[in-house]
Amino acid sequence: VSKASTPRAVGLVGGGVIGAGWAARLLLNGVDVRLFDPAPQTERVVAEVLENARRAYGRLTLAPLPPEGSLVLVDSPEEAAAGVELVQESAPERLELKRELLAAVERGASSETPIASSTSGLRPSELQAELAHPERLAVGHPFNPVYLLPLVEVCGGSRTAPETVTRLAGLYRSLGMHPLVVRTEIDGFVADRLLEALWREALWLVHDDVATVAEVDDAIRYGAGLRWAFMGTFLTYRIAGGEAGMRHFLSQFGPALAWPWTKLTDVPELTDELVERIAAQSDEQAEGVPVRDLERRRDDVLVALLQALRAEDAGAGATLAAWERGLMGGAAGLDGDDGGPLRLHGTRIPADWIDYNGHVHESRYLQLCSDATDALLGALGVDAAYLTDGGSYFTVETHLSHLRQLEAGDRVQVATQVLDADEKRLHVFHAVLRDGEEEPVATAEQMLLHVDARSGRVAPARDGVLDRVSRLRDAHAALPRPERAGRAITIP
Amino acid sequence: VSKASTPRAVGLVGGGVIGAGWAARLLLNGVDVRLFDPAPQTERVVAEVLENARRAYGRLTLAPLPPEGSLVLVDSPEEAAAGVELVQESAPERLELKRELLAAVERGASSETPIASSTSGLRPSELQAELAHPERLAVGHPFNPVYLLPLVEVCGGSRTAPETVTRLAGLYRSLGMHPLVVRTEIDGFVADRLLEALWREALWLVHDDVATVAEVDDAIRYGAGLRWAFMGTFLTYRIAGGEAGMRHFLSQFGPALAWPWTKLTDVPELTDELVERIAAQSDEQAEGVPVRDLERRRDDVLVALLQALRAEDAGAGATLAAWERGLMGGAAGLDGDDGGPLRLHGTRIPADWIDYNGHVHESRYLQLCSDATDALLGALGVDAAYLTDGGSYFTVETHLSHLRQLEAGDRVQVATQVLDADEKRLHVFHAVLRDGEEEPVATAEQMLLHVDARSGRVAPARDGVLDRVSRLRDAHAALPRPERAGRAITIP
Repeated sequence: VSKASTPRAVGLVGGGVIGAGWAARLLLNGVDVRLFDPAPQTERVVAEVLENARRAYGRLTLAPLPPEGSLVLVDSPEEAAAGVELVQESAPERLELKRELLAAVERGASSETPIASSTSGLRPSELQAELAHPERLAVGHPFNPVYLLPLVEVCGGSRTAPETVTRLAGLYRSLGMHPLVVRTEIDGFVADRLLEALWREALWLVHDDVATVAEVDDAIRYGAGLRWAFMGTFLTYRIAGGEAGMRHFLSQFGPALAWPWTKLTDVPELTDELVERIAAQSDEQAEGVPVRDLERRRDDVLVALLQALRAEDAGAGATLAAWERGLMGGAAGLDGDDGGPLRLHGTRIPADWIDYNGHVHESRYLQLCSDATDALLGALGVDAAYLTDGGSYFTVETHLSHLRQLEAGDRVQVATQVLDADEKRLHVFHAVLRDGEEEPVATAEQMLLHVDARSGRVAPARDGVLDRVSRLRDAHAALPRPERAGRAITIP
Repeated sequence: VSKASTPRAVGLVGGGVIGAGWAARLLLNGVDVRLFDPAPQTERVVAEVLENARRAYGRLTLAPLPPEGSLVLVDSPEEAAAGVELVQESAPERLELKRELLAAVERGASSETPIASSTSGLRPSELQAELAHPERLAVGHPFNPVYLLPLVEVCGGSRTAPETVTRLAGLYRSLGMHPLVVRTEIDGFVADRLLEALWREALWLVHDDVATVAEVDDAIRYGAGLRWAFMGTFLTYRIAGGEAGMRHFLSQFGPALAWPWTKLTDVPELTDELVERIAAQSDEQAEGVPVRDLERRRDDVLVALLQALRAEDAGAGATLAAWERGLMGGAAGLDGDDGGPLRLHGTRIPADWIDYNGHVHESRYLQLCSDATDALLGALGVDAAYLTDGGSYFTVETHLSHLRQLEAGDRVQVATQVLDADEKRLHVFHAVLRDGEEEPVATAEQMLLHVDARSGRVAPARDGVLDRVSRLRDAHAALPRPERAGRAITIP
C-alpha cells in the first residue's frame, strides 16, 4: 500500500449533505477547498455540517489535527476545478446534470487532475462517455456522514486508467478513509446493493404491516447490527458454522434459501462450485485463525461496542445499563446481620489487576471498597427503582491506606462499618481482608452524600433508605472505632 | 414495563451454539440450568462457550454478578423440564424433531411453565399444533452470541395466550435482553427477513464474481454497519433526508427503487398511503427531536464506536489508528517545566470506565492520579534500571476528593505538585483537570515511601533520585498549598 500525502487543495461540485461532508473531512485534514453549488443555502449547510464535524473530531482523536484548510465558495464548476489536485462531484443523481457539470469541471481542470463522482447509482462508463479525458474519471462513493465513516467505494469505468483508481485510493487513504476498489462496474456497486436489499425488505415489512419502522430498526440495532459494525455477513456466518467452518454452515444453511420467505426474490443456486468459492474465500479471509480465537475476538469487540453504547445510553448500551441496575438490586441484603461489620462483598483477585511492577494496581484496592459500598447501598434499599426515581449516593471523599499487598488469585472480603450518618451523609469504613487473615491489607474511609439526580443537588435520603441507614448507624455505634479512621496525610 | 425477577431454574433442550449460549447467559445471571442434548460433545461445547462468556462478562460489567447458577446435564427433555420456570428449546431446525421434543418437554413440565423455541424459521402455530397446552408456547428467537447480543424476538402462534408472550418478554428482560415482540406471525419473523435479504444479495455478489467475501464484509463494516450498530435503516434515512425529513427522503429516493439493480426482486409500490405510513411512524420514532440534534447524537455514538473499535484494533478502528499515526508525524514535543505543577499525564476517558450508574467508576479517578504518580517517578529517575536494582516507591496512603464528574470521551490532564519530601518519603498532590477548565474534577493527595525491595523495608532513596526529589520539593515549595491538602474525613 503506497502512502499518498494529503492533497493541498480539492475542488468540490455540489454542497448538499454529501458535498458538505466532503468539505468537512477535507478542511479538518488541512486541505483547502473550492466549492461550487448554486443553491442559496449552501454556505449555511456547509457551515452547519462543518460545525458538527469539528465537534466530532474534537472527541474522536487526541492526535494533533493540522491547521484547518480554507474554504472558498466559487461561482462555477470551472473555478472549483482550477489549481486543485482532485475534483469531487456530489451533485443530484441525474445523469444529464452530472455530465454537464463534469464537462465544465474538465474545462477548468488541468488534464491530469483526477475527477471523482460521489454517485451511488450511476455507472462511471456513462459519466465519462462525453469527457475529453475520460481516463481520469472514476466513482468515489462515500457514506454519510462523510467526515466520520471511512468507507469510500472506488470504481472505474471502461475508459478509466488503472492509475486513476490507484491515485484516488491513495488520496482517500490520506484523509483517513478506507477505499474499497470495486473491480466490476455494476449498478449500485457493492455497498448499495447490500443496503438496498435490506431497505427493500424493510419496506415490505412496513408495507405488509408486520412491523413499524421503529420495530424494524430495533430488530437491527439490538442484534445483527452490532456484529455488522466490525464483521460483515460472511465472517459472522463462518463463526456461526463453529469448528466445521464455512462449508458446514453453507451445507446446513443452504436449504433455508428455498424456504417460503424467499418467495420475494430469486436466490442463486448453491452449486458445489459456488460453495467451494465461498468457502475458499472465507478461509483466505480468516487467515488461518481458529474459530475459538475468532469467537473470543468477536466477543472482545462486542464488549467494547456495548460499553461504548452504554456510555452514550444508545440502543443495546441502554439495555446493558438496565441489566446492571437490576444486578445492583439483587446484591446481598442486611439479613443475618450479627451486629458486627458487614461482609457484603468478596471476590478473587483477577490477573488483569496486576500492574507492570507485578503488584495489584492501587486503584483496584479502591475498586474493591467501592464495590463494597455499592453492595451496602443495595442492602440499604438503593435499588434500581430508587435510582430510576432519582435518588442516589455519591462518594465525595475517600481516604485509602495501603498496609500490605495482594496477589492475583487471592480471595478477599471487605468488612464494612458505618461510622456516622445523617439524613444527607453516610460515613463508612472498609477493611479489605484476605481470606483467613484478621489484619486488613488495605482500608478505605469514605464520605458519601445523598443527591437528587434530577436537581443535581444534595438532598435528604428517602424514607425507607433513611430508616435503614439510621438503624445501621445505631447498630454500628457500639463497634470500636477503627484505628485509621479520621487520618490526615502529613510528614510530621 | 413490568419487571419480572430472574428465574430460579430453566430447562434447555439442545446444547449446540445457541443452546450453549443460552446456558452461559442463564448461569452467569445466577440461574440454575438443566440441559438435555444427546450429542456426546455437549459437555465440552457448553464448557467452552461458558468459558468464553465468563471472560466476556468479566470485561463487560463492573456490577456484581450473582453467584453462578449450577449446570446439570440430564438424559431426557422430560427431565430438563422438571421443576423449572421456563423451558427453552434450541434443537436443529426440523419441524418433526422439534414437535417430538416439545411433546416430551410437555410431559415433564408443569402445565403453566412457558415453553419457548429458539427457531429462526418455523412458525409457532406449527410448533404448537400437537401440544396439550399450546397456549404456553411461543418463539423466543435469540442471536449469536446469545450471552452478549440483547435481541430476542418473541412471537406467539395462533393458539398462544397473550400472557405467555408478556411473561417470556419479562423473563428475557430480567436476563439483560431486549425482547422484540413480533405481532404478526410470518416466516423468518422480522430480523431474519432483513438478514436474509442482505445475505441473498451478498451471495449474488460472490456468485457473479463482483466481489469476494472479504470485499463484501468490508463494504459493510467500514460503512453502513457502523450505523446499524445503533440505528436501523429507517432512522438512518430520516437523518439522510436532512431538514425535510422522511417524506422528502422517500420522494427523493423513491425512484431508486425502480433502478436496474432492483431487477432481482419485487419492490413495494411507494403509494401515497405507504409514504404517509412510513413518514408518520418515523416521526413517532424520532420523538420530535430535530434532525440537527439527531445528527449530533449519531456523531457522538459513531465516535464512541470508532474509539471502541480502535481500542480493539478492529475494522474502522484500525483505519482511525492509521490516520492518527499519520497526524502524529507533525506532533509537537513536550513543553519545558515552567515551575508550576507538572503536567505529566493526560488521557481521554474510555467508555469502559463507566459504571452502571452512567458515571466514571470512582476507582478510575485514582487510576488517573496513580498513572500521574508513575509518570512523576519516571521523571525523577525511578526507571527500569532503578527498579531492577531494588529501589522503588510504594503508595501507603491516598486521600481522594470527588468534586465533579467526568464523562466518557472527556480529555483530562493531571497537574502534580510535590507538597513535601524527605529521604524516605514523598508527599504529592494531584488535581485532575478537564481540558479547558481551571477547577479540578477530583484531587488526590498521596504519601509514598521509598523501599528496598530486597529487604522489603523502608529505606532512603538512592542519590540521583533523591537529588531530583529534593530539587522538585524546593521548586514546588513556592507554590500555594492546595486547599484540600491535609484533610481528614468527618461529619462535623
